[in-house]
Amino acid sequence: MEPWRTAISTFEPNHIRIRGHAVEELMARGNFADTAFLLLRGRLPSPAESRVWNAILTASADHGPTPPSTMAARVIASGNRRAPEAAIAGGLLAIGDAHGGAGEEAMEMLRRGLTMMEEEGRAVGEAAQALLDSYRTAGRRIPGVGHRVHTNDPRTDALWTLSADARLAGKAVELMRSIAVALSKADRPLPVNVDGALAAVLVDMGFEPPIGRIAFILGRCAGIAAHVLEELTREKPMRIEVPFTYDGP
Amino acid sequence: MEPWRTAISTFEPNHIRIRGHAVEELMARGNFADTAFLLLRGRLPSPAESRVWNAILTASADHGPTPPSTMAARVIASGNRRAPEAAIAGGLLAIGDAHGGAGEEAMEMLRRGLTMMEEEGRAVGEAAQALLDSYRTAGRRIPGVGHRVHTNDPRTDALWTLSADARLAGKAVELMRSIAVALSKADRPLPVNVDGALAAVLVDMGFEPPIGRIAFILGRCAGIAAHVLEELTREKPMRIEVPFTYDGP
Amino acid sequence: MEPWRTAISTFEPNHIRIRGHAVEELMARGNFADTAFLLLRGRLPSPAESRVWNAILTASADHGPTPPSTMAARVIASGNRRAPEAAIAGGLLAIGDAHGGAGEEAMEMLRRGLTMMEEEGRAVGEAAQALLDSYRTAGRRIPGVGHRVHTNDPRTDALWTLSADARLAGKAVELMRSIAVALSKADRPLPVNVDGALAAVLVDMGFEPPIGRIAFILGRCAGIAAHVLEELTREKPMRIEVPFTYDGP
Amino acid sequence: MEPWRTAISTFEPNHIRIRGHAVEELMARGNFADTAFLLLRGRLPSPAESRVWNAILTASADHGPTPPSTMAARVIASGNRRAPEAAIAGGLLAIGDAHGGAGEEAMEMLRRGLTMMEEEGRAVGEAAQALLDSYRTAGRRIPGVGHRVHTNDPRTDALWTLSADARLAGKAVELMRSIAVALSKADRPLPVNVDGALAAVLVDMGFEPPIGRIAFILGRCAGIAAHVLEELTREKPMRIEVPFTYDGP
Repeated sequence: MEPWRTAISTFEPNHIRIRGHAVEELMARGNFADTAFLLLRGRLPSPAESRVWNAILTASADHGPTPPSTMAARVIASGNRRAPEAAIAGGLLAIGDAHGGAGEEAMEMLRRGLTMMEEEGRAVGEAAQALLDSYRTAGRRIPGVGHRVHTNDPRTDALWTLSADARLAGKAVELMRSIAVALSKADRPLPVNVDGALAAVLVDMGFEPPIGRIAFILGRCAGIAAHVLEELTREKPMRIEVPFTYDGP
Repeated sequence: MEPWRTAISTFEPNHIRIRGHAVEELMARGNFADTAFLLLRGRLPSPAESRVWNAILTASADHGPTPPSTMAARVIASGNRRAPEAAIAGGLLAIGDAHGGAGEEAMEMLRRGLTMMEEEGRAVGEAAQALLDSYRTAGRRIPGVGHRVHTNDPRTDALWTLSADARLAGKAVELMRSIAVALSKADRPLPVNVDGALAAVLVDMGFEPPIGRIAFILGRCAGIAAHVLEELTREKPMRIEVPFTYDGP
Repeated sequence: MEPWRTAISTFEPNHIRIRGHAVEELMARGNFADTAFLLLRGRLPSPAESRVWNAILTASADHGPTPPSTMAARVIASGNRRAPEAAIAGGLLAIGDAHGGAGEEAMEMLRRGLTMMEEEGRAVGEAAQALLDSYRTAGRRIPGVGHRVHTNDPRTDALWTLSADARLAGKAVELMRSIAVALSKADRPLPVNVDGALAAVLVDMGFEPPIGRIAFILGRCAGIAAHVLEELTREKPMRIEVPFTYDGP
Repeated sequence: MEPWRTAISTFEPNHIRIRGHAVEELMARGNFADTAFLLLRGRLPSPAESRVWNAILTASADHGPTPPSTMAARVIASGNRRAPEAAIAGGLLAIGDAHGGAGEEAMEMLRRGLTMMEEEGRAVGEAAQALLDSYRTAGRRIPGVGHRVHTNDPRTDALWTLSADARLAGKAVELMRSIAVALSKADRPLPVNVDGALAAVLVDMGFEPPIGRIAFILGRCAGIAAHVLEELTREKPMRIEVPFTYDGP
């Protein structure tokens, strides 16, 4: 077998290095999310980047037991009490396209828009409109806009404020907000949701689109783990009953 | 269907609360690991707890491509390029008993030892010896001691220092070190490994044993995600070949 | 890397052999379950074994959308539309101890009982009583007996008939039925459930306990796949809402 | 919560029905794959369909420890000894696009070709050439053709023979073979591989493309389970070491 190659980490007796940093130095920093940033990005974040990156992971961490990832994890834990890793992993498997995929898709959209602005010299409003048109033509939903519950998602506002304070909000944030304005009607403003907000900020921070999904997974893993633990400690095995109707032969 | 109940988080339009804290306040703290602590523990950590908890997650994050969790994730990514959540989840599934289970098991052992000390008035050395004897009788390996590569695990030293500085190292740390001393021979000292070190510190911080596994999962999720991303961006699909011999009929 | 070794299958250009049989011969047999038997047992089944083994897999295949494995798979599919393998795998993760584990546990119990009968010369009723006593002392539930819905599980009856007709029902079936009789009250007979029935028949067919779980997984994989396909083709993404109450701070 | 709806299966006390058939009748048929066909298709197979469907599942079952699904399952089992469902599920997660996805993709391609033949009146050779041209233009590999090991895959030959004997080979089989002929060079014939063969036969049997993946998953689940069992019974925990080189900072 060919040796695998990695640029992420290595070890020798009594030494472990992650992206060239000794693990004990990283431990002393007091910020695990910085380690995750280092692992994914290849370098440590600046203090400003660290604040925003930590906020993105917290924004993704949890919002109740109802999303498919959390619900699936609790259902699995109700049948599998002895292997919590199975319930947590099962929860992550629901982070696909309909749930948890909008961040990655919005990052791809925003990068297409930024390319229009940079290479074709379009203004931000023109790029926003061109993106809306292309989605409408393809019959697809614009990612990152609108929410079933929140008209003004508190996580979006917090990300706008934090990224502006950190001087990390740039053209992608501007473009995302422009898209939402263009979509809104006089009578019904459509907000940027948390997926759109973190996508815009991640693009402005220089991340590639897959990080939209991975940041959500890392953050949500904490929430899922808490729900699995609650299911195992507060609920009886096999407690979940779903009502159903049969309409087959 | 009976409504599910949760004490973790809730939402109403334009408000999300985690353990009673508004999500935007948590986002402003700049420390995602504090959010994970809050989710799992029900309260925010003190500054000292935050430093040690962050260090535990970083200690768990990554140490190369060779552990089963990382290796499985990369193998899955080599066959499944379009669903990185599958590769990350698949990696977590390897965090079972032989890999990643020693922390939880060591926490259970240490709590048995602490009970002996508190309820039966035994000295720390007596409790350590009693635990060793019970493992020897059962023919089982002591968890949290010894390492295939490191004679002096840098993560263990860092955890001892950080937890002592934070005044969070207590009787469980003392007991774990006493167990290692009792196991060592004059010619061959046996070190406390990272599983034993984080188990002891977590017990002294008041965590229940399942957190031994969950802290490892949360930390390692970041490392696994980085390896999946590296596999997808640097390697060709299906690149992994394992040599095998057939000894069947 | 050391070559892996396997006694299951091998290939060379234009030839694939499973347990020594050419794959094209197995394909011509018209019975996939025989291939699964061969893979797990190392030899092909007799015609009688084939009939009973096929029945066990069918008995495990599906019984509605309510078990945790099926429910979890559908919940995952509602969030992850592009990777059905994630939904199917997520369903299998719920086959743990509380759900789908009774077959394996009953096989271990029955084998302990058979050892009592063979090595200590106990009669079947004595062995049944000894097993009941040991479970009662340990405060554990007897596996393989009782059902929330069925007082007379149709799968149990079918397995008794098929295994008797095939002359494969032996002492384990006798012991399992004896356990159920001993547990029953005059006013409330307790039936052997499908887990107990397939456990008894598998023991009489010479299978090891882990096959209790694996047979259930192989059979249920078909039912889970059908439910995932139905979710993807008949239902909208993110259609599942679970009602919940919050009782935290 | 809205009741879920299903047309697959239902139960009432002492009765379980799958697609309208009593489970005990299905158990008596002696052919589990027929139950899987019923679950996925909504009706039982004809005897000819049963023979070919069983052959497809057997063709998918196993071909050594080297594919990502089997390798990942064994790696997970080496770290997680107490939860074999995790290892089996982890194996299925590798059945994505690069591994195990060619069958589904080939089914979609063949259906596009059949539409050309039916709606545009093209001959089979013309449709084959049009498909090749469209793949070449898109810069994508033709699915279902070519193999790293087999120049004449024994599973392909067996599927051609079985489906012809069963009078189930139709225009999709003809089209798949025509594609392979058009791709071959005088000096280097390119064979239809097992993915292409089962895709063609499944299309001719009237199955939708997702069944290409699901048939592979159902069949391979048996092989993966056997490898997990072999890993757990023949090998030591954590036995797998992968050689690696570090080329990072």
